[in-house]
Amino acid sequence: MDAVSTSVEYAESGGTVDQFVDPAVLVEGLARAGRAAQRQLAKMSTTTRAEALHLGAAALRRAAPVILEANAKDVEDGEAAGLSAAMVDRLRLDPARIEAMAAAVDQVAALDDPVGRIIDESSRPNGMVLRRVRVPIGMIGIIYESRPNVTADAAALCVRSGNAVLLRGGSEAARSNRAIHSALVGGLAQGGVPAEVVQFVPTQDRAVVGAMLAASGLIDMIVPRGGKSLVARVQADARVPVLAHLDGINHTFVDRDADPAMARGIVLNAKMRRTGVCGAMETLLVDVLFPDPHGLVEPLLEAGCELRGDARTCSIDPRIKPAEPADWDAEYLDAVLSVAIVDGLEGALTHITRHSSGHTDAIVTENGDAASRFLSEVDSAIVIHNASSQFADGGEFGLGAEIGIATGRLHARGPVALEGLTTYKWQVLGSGQIRP
Amino acid sequence: MDAVSTSVEYAESGGTVDQFVDPAVLVEGLARAGRAAQRQLAKMSTTTRAEALHLGAAALRRAAPVILEANAKDVEDGEAAGLSAAMVDRLRLDPARIEAMAAAVDQVAALDDPVGRIIDESSRPNGMVLRRVRVPIGMIGIIYESRPNVTADAAALCVRSGNAVLLRGGSEAARSNRAIHSALVGGLAQGGVPAEVVQFVPTQDRAVVGAMLAASGLIDMIVPRGGKSLVARVQADARVPVLAHLDGINHTFVDRDADPAMARGIVLNAKMRRTGVCGAMETLLVDVLFPDPHGLVEPLLEAGCELRGDARTCSIDPRIKPAEPADWDAEYLDAVLSVAIVDGLEGALTHITRHSSGHTDAIVTENGDAASRFLSEVDSAIVIHNASSQFADGGEFGLGAEIGIATGRLHARGPVALEGLTTYKWQVLGSGQIRP
Repeated sequence: MDAVSTSVEYAESGGTVDQFVDPAVLVEGLARAGRAAQRQLAKMSTTTRAEALHLGAAALRRAAPVILEANAKDVEDGEAAGLSAAMVDRLRLDPARIEAMAAAVDQVAALDDPVGRIIDESSRPNGMVLRRVRVPIGMIGIIYESRPNVTADAAALCVRSGNAVLLRGGSEAARSNRAIHSALVGGLAQGGVPAEVVQFVPTQDRAVVGAMLAASGLIDMIVPRGGKSLVARVQADARVPVLAHLDGINHTFVDRDADPAMARGIVLNAKMRRTGVCGAMETLLVDVLFPDPHGLVEPLLEAGCELRGDARTCSIDPRIKPAEPADWDAEYLDAVLSVAIVDGLEGALTHITRHSSGHTDAIVTENGDAASRFLSEVDSAIVIHNASSQFADGGEFGLGAEIGIATGRLHARGPVALEGLTTYKWQVLGSGQIRP
Repeated sequence: MDAVSTSVEYAESGGTVDQFVDPAVLVEGLARAGRAAQRQLAKMSTTTRAEALHLGAAALRRAAPVILEANAKDVEDGEAAGLSAAMVDRLRLDPARIEAMAAAVDQVAALDDPVGRIIDESSRPNGMVLRRVRVPIGMIGIIYESRPNVTADAAALCVRSGNAVLLRGGSEAARSNRAIHSALVGGLAQGGVPAEVVQFVPTQDRAVVGAMLAASGLIDMIVPRGGKSLVARVQADARVPVLAHLDGINHTFVDRDADPAMARGIVLNAKMRRTGVCGAMETLLVDVLFPDPHGLVEPLLEAGCELRGDARTCSIDPRIKPAEPADWDAEYLDAVLSVAIVDGLEGALTHITRHSSGHTDAIVTENGDAASRFLSEVDSAIVIHNASSQFADGGEFGLGAEIGIATGRLHARGPVALEGLTTYKWQVLGSGQIRP
């Protein structure tokens, strides 16, 4: 244990870690310290945890100058290293962004705490009472890329739900993340929450990611936040359960019985409100009997969206390009849309079963039977009737904040917030029962 | 796809599969056929699924002579191969065991169906209604050892909850499992449930297990049912989520304020009712201020239990042997018990935090504060006040049947029955909402 303790001290000193520290030893030290602190956190009242988070938010505001200074160096290095303008924008902080980060921590502090909630309760013929009670998962690992606000967001969600967290941010934001982490845990400690519940990986050694993915028994769940290659690597290599979001190949089906004006509005919004979000529509399916297909594509073309259609779609408008087979499985995250004319609800269901990534699929129709079949038979995390797929978001779902959107099938699905950071235990209340 | 189709035909023909079929191709073929059939199953009413299971149970009863004949050959081979008497007993079927297997299928058919249940529902300020609805997980893989009744049990639980299942049983029960599978799916098909929802691996090639563990995207969850080495292998190698039960190092703490008679009864039952079950107590912790420690150990010694104690415990009775350090982390599954005298509730919590496997831990006390601290601070799947740990069982919890007991933290914890074989989807009901 000596080697472990040493690396923990290193980690907590805020200094640079010796690059020769074994990444597995480093992760074990951080995780063990976090787990011990989590047991203290779990005993605290929900009010104490909330107040400590408000103190953490206040500490972020006070530390704004320090965070901005650290961030300026990260931005300078990033520009020198040739980061794209979009990446530099994601990296850059300003006073408004720091205020937004602190406000988000305050908002998480104000959310209802799921810990201690009784899921169900029953009594047995022998008089025993059984109940399932929500408890924190334990230690959550977050592996994320350039946005520094994830440091504060993810930590706040974990602490609110009684969990410890091990944060591993991207190298381009290393100084910013360290400054944010340092301010936040200072505030938490003022509120009596041990600083060790929020652990921060103090090295950019990429082998640490591998060590986190292998840390079965030390980390209970890993949430990757970033691009597809990061998520795919985490899913492929993890020996720890992963809550992850992969593709959002989302369909909107305009049924023959759709209200044409409503369909136009929903289709335009689902594609063009923001093309880079995971809830953006990527394929439009139009019932061959829908009366006004041109009315659907015209506003998209006007808005500058490239349309790639099947043969029947191409006949609607000469500006529509022919789709390649790969288009039906493409997540463009851009102003590009594949469009197919399908033979009614049946045709839409067949297309979606084959091509949907199981994220968010929507139907527009005034026909209740068609809507109810669609909502029941489409097996995606989110199924929508008569609304834009861009609502696929924890905030829009009233969850207050989200740790991510899960496209897996177990534990939690769709937007995941505080409840998804908990599990349950069975409490059995007896009066001397023995089993015959 | 031709190779896949061929192996599916092989699999469904009931014949022996060419040993040169690629295990990954075989698993893909079986899983794809099962997934397609599952989509049909998911559209059926709960009544249809229940009636088909009753027909499956009837088919098992009718096929009893065929199953017994197949089983007799398995038993003969097993004895010739030198299987232990205990393993032969687990393998052997008789008319009563077949009736019990059929009755268990009937019982699962009669359970409440979780599919379609609304978990929660809310409405947003913009008028959208959101609800979470339970849906089947999809395709469940079961990897099990010698007991042939698992073939029927696991299949029934999966079909009741709308899932397809891929069964991979042990080689020693191959003929029995095949006969049970064949009868069961015949009955299901009579009830309109496609036989392909219950897939059976038609080869004993051990590489198939590896292929199942790697079948991410084809199999949604794997449940290993068997000894510790099987479970450990599955957990180490799976690229698919695993619902598994590992150790049950279960503690019972007798507090200073326990009722001595109740404590004696619970302790004796928790250890000696059946020593080989996962809910059996493996360590007894006695508060140093509990007035009658000898009254606790005497009935255990009388019942033939070997006791291994710490120094303070050894002074209670000369028949108690000194414990080695390894005893505090041992799952004996036998008439052996480690016993420690601890300094009150605090001492018990420290010991349990360090040594519990997180399965089932119990306190015996008349002190409500001590009980409530124990139930809240012990972080195990099942925590019990004033009852025997041997109640850790899905049937005893009123779940009707169980697919297993989970010692992991995500998705489901403790006894897992039909609800644990479901996930949920978000249904969003709009009236034309677009996101600003």
